[in-house]
Amino acid sequence: MTYLDHAATTPMLDRAVTAMCEALSRTGNASSLHASGRHARRAVEESRETIAEAVGARPSEVIFTSGGTEGDNLAVKGFYWARRDADPRRVRVLVSAVEHHAVLDTAEWLAAHEGAELVPLPVDGHGRVRPETLRAALSTDPERAAVVSVMWANNEVGTVNDIAELAAVAHEFGVPLHTDAVQAVGILPVDFAASGADALTLTGHKLGGPYGQGALLLRRDAACTPLLHGGGQERDVRSGTLNGPAVVALAVAVEHAVAEAPARAAALAGMRDRLVAGVREQVPDAIYNGDPGTYPLAGGPSRLPGNAHLSFPGCEGDSLIMLMDANGIECSTGSACTAGVARPSHVLLAMGADEAMARGSLRFSLGHTSVPGDVDAVLAAIGPVVERARRAGHAGARRAVPAGGR
Amino acid sequence: MTYLDHAATTPMLDRAVTAMCEALSRTGNASSLHASGRHARRAVEESRETIAEAVGARPSEVIFTSGGTEGDNLAVKGFYWARRDADPRRVRVLVSAVEHHAVLDTAEWLAAHEGAELVPLPVDGHGRVRPETLRAALSTDPERAAVVSVMWANNEVGTVNDIAELAAVAHEFGVPLHTDAVQAVGILPVDFAASGADALTLTGHKLGGPYGQGALLLRRDAACTPLLHGGGQERDVRSGTLNGPAVVALAVAVEHAVAEAPARAAALAGMRDRLVAGVREQVPDAIYNGDPGTYPLAGGPSRLPGNAHLSFPGCEGDSLIMLMDANGIECSTGSACTAGVARPSHVLLAMGADEAMARGSLRFSLGHTSVPGDVDAVLAAIGPVVERARRAGHAGARRAVPAGGR
Repeated sequence: MTYLDHAATTPMLDRAVTAMCEALSRTGNASSLHASGRHARRAVEESRETIAEAVGARPSEVIFTSGGTEGDNLAVKGFYWARRDADPRRVRVLVSAVEHHAVLDTAEWLAAHEGAELVPLPVDGHGRVRPETLRAALSTDPERAAVVSVMWANNEVGTVNDIAELAAVAHEFGVPLHTDAVQAVGILPVDFAASGADALTLTGHKLGGPYGQGALLLRRDAACTPLLHGGGQERDVRSGTLNGPAVVALAVAVEHAVAEAPARAAALAGMRDRLVAGVREQVPDAIYNGDPGTYPLAGGPSRLPGNAHLSFPGCEGDSLIMLMDANGIECSTGSACTAGVARPSHVLLAMGADEAMARGSLRFSLGHTSVPGDVDAVLAAIGPVVERARRAGHAGARRAVPAGGR
Repeated sequence: MTYLDHAATTPMLDRAVTAMCEALSRTGNASSLHASGRHARRAVEESRETIAEAVGARPSEVIFTSGGTEGDNLAVKGFYWARRDADPRRVRVLVSAVEHHAVLDTAEWLAAHEGAELVPLPVDGHGRVRPETLRAALSTDPERAAVVSVMWANNEVGTVNDIAELAAVAHEFGVPLHTDAVQAVGILPVDFAASGADALTLTGHKLGGPYGQGALLLRRDAACTPLLHGGGQERDVRSGTLNGPAVVALAVAVEHAVAEAPARAAALAGMRDRLVAGVREQVPDAIYNGDPGTYPLAGGPSRLPGNAHLSFPGCEGDSLIMLMDANGIECSTGSACTAGVARPSHVLLAMGADEAMARGSLRFSLGHTSVPGDVDAVLAAIGPVVERARRAGHAGARRAVPAGGR
């Protein structure tokens, strides 16, 4: 099986599995006062320090969450409520048009339910939010801006934003910036302090850690209304019993992924470039979406090194996936599928693609288990698969699909 | 080490650890369309069926969450918002005075932030909400009631509520009832359909499953506004990548705990009764809080079989815990400790205890690893420990303690 869907979830690192399985057999609630509780607490706090160190944060800035969706919801809703409560005029929620649904749907709910005004930030043809776009949006009604949320790297097309520059613009207007960095941490150089972001979402299962465990990095001075109330854990920002074993495994994975990232990025980019070149050789009208890697970014590459997102005119993405799957190759459309309805990617539409093109796309995402043979497998299959998908055309592509996924 | 803090967290069952560790090494996002994704999805759906079967629910009524705090927040906020949105008069949130902070603080936030009116439901001297109390509270302004939340069994003193009767009362007034059953599932007979509750919170780490994985049982016809927006998983009520390995382990634990519960309850109650009798023999003025087990309940015992909650006049709970810990016995005060400040238990205060008495309490909670020797250990230590705690008196008991915990 050729697994090229690391952006959806990447295999857990053996060392993280080992750490987690050891911890699962130990008992102790990190909030308990007795010895077992104190041991559990110590493991959590050491893990917090490890994670903070790896991503340029202070330990007290690490708020453990259940993952990316919760982190995004907490930051966007929490910042919105805190800012609006402090100044009722501050209701504008500025989010890029290409955010994951965990940010987009959150912002839409705030608009529908909590009096927010949703301001989508347009992106350029590569899917990037230009700093001047943010500045223009904030210049309109600056005193009504509540929060900005722009992802570090896009989960579909892999485009990297210049978060440091965007945060600087947001701060010119005194507005906090949140960034969904679940695709970036452990892959790109991510330094929370240097980025200037006020909050940053990361999650385990995108970087070799467990499902169900992530963190929101949150500046000490950033007011954030809690989403989960209760025992007062995590600076009272996120109540709930700490998931000790998963926290320990997350720390192992973050530390390792961050340390390996520079070497791995180069290897992945090399494989990815060969994949893209090979696909385009066999399917000359295939379109390579996103940033070709040319945008000048100070902090690292301008495209995720493991991301290859291609559109195949005349094909349906779901047909392509199923045909690739039948050839033993696992990848994704890169589009969000909700409630059984396949929809064209909002990311590609925001980048200016037409709907038919947006539907006929494949995302190959490479990761820590990828080897050159995976690229060979794709190149052996892609020509006949695209040909067959074109013959199947539009009609055969309607099917129910499960909900969610990045 | 004698571990008598199963109500805070209970050791994970070996079979659940095994199931989880096996699953951790498998890759696949349950939302992905390819083979790995479909396998992950199948494991999740089989687990959903197992859990539903064990607790008298339909599979579609199982909404996976990150645990008890999230389940409680989702039900109380979700019901409140949905009901108020449908009828702006419906703002009254009725919760028992002895709820866990995950419910109480949620209700308080709704009152402080979302226009709710918090109606605490008083309890009797055993910590139980009488059906007539709920009826009286609903009779005042029945058209303004949004939601009722009463826990199945209290985490501190172990008192079991008659949820079926309370739900019937709530439904007389057309009001949905949520119950926090994290202390009950896998210990008491819990049948969601028979209970009549509209939503029920359960969580893994209280019943031999993993941390960070729980479920909200939610009737199909119960409108509930989501707390986490995004990918649309879990009937669009709870977005976020499904934590496949933890779901699998939760199902193993729920199935096993529920199957073993009748036999285990009898064994635990026997050990608990011996513990209580022995403690009172050695400390004659110790007070056994909660229901002595005499309330007529159709569905099972009126007190959690593994719960022994005792007050020791003239002692500080924290001193008692530390002295017991020094004797190798792990238990808790049963009071919630928040942000480093030890506070008297709101549960005992609501039951009519005075503050000094409420501070000098210990909760021993037995569980699946408890053996008669654990009781012997307590009985060997308790006399000298109480004597010493009394000598230490009030002054020595101030210390910083970590936040949270049940």
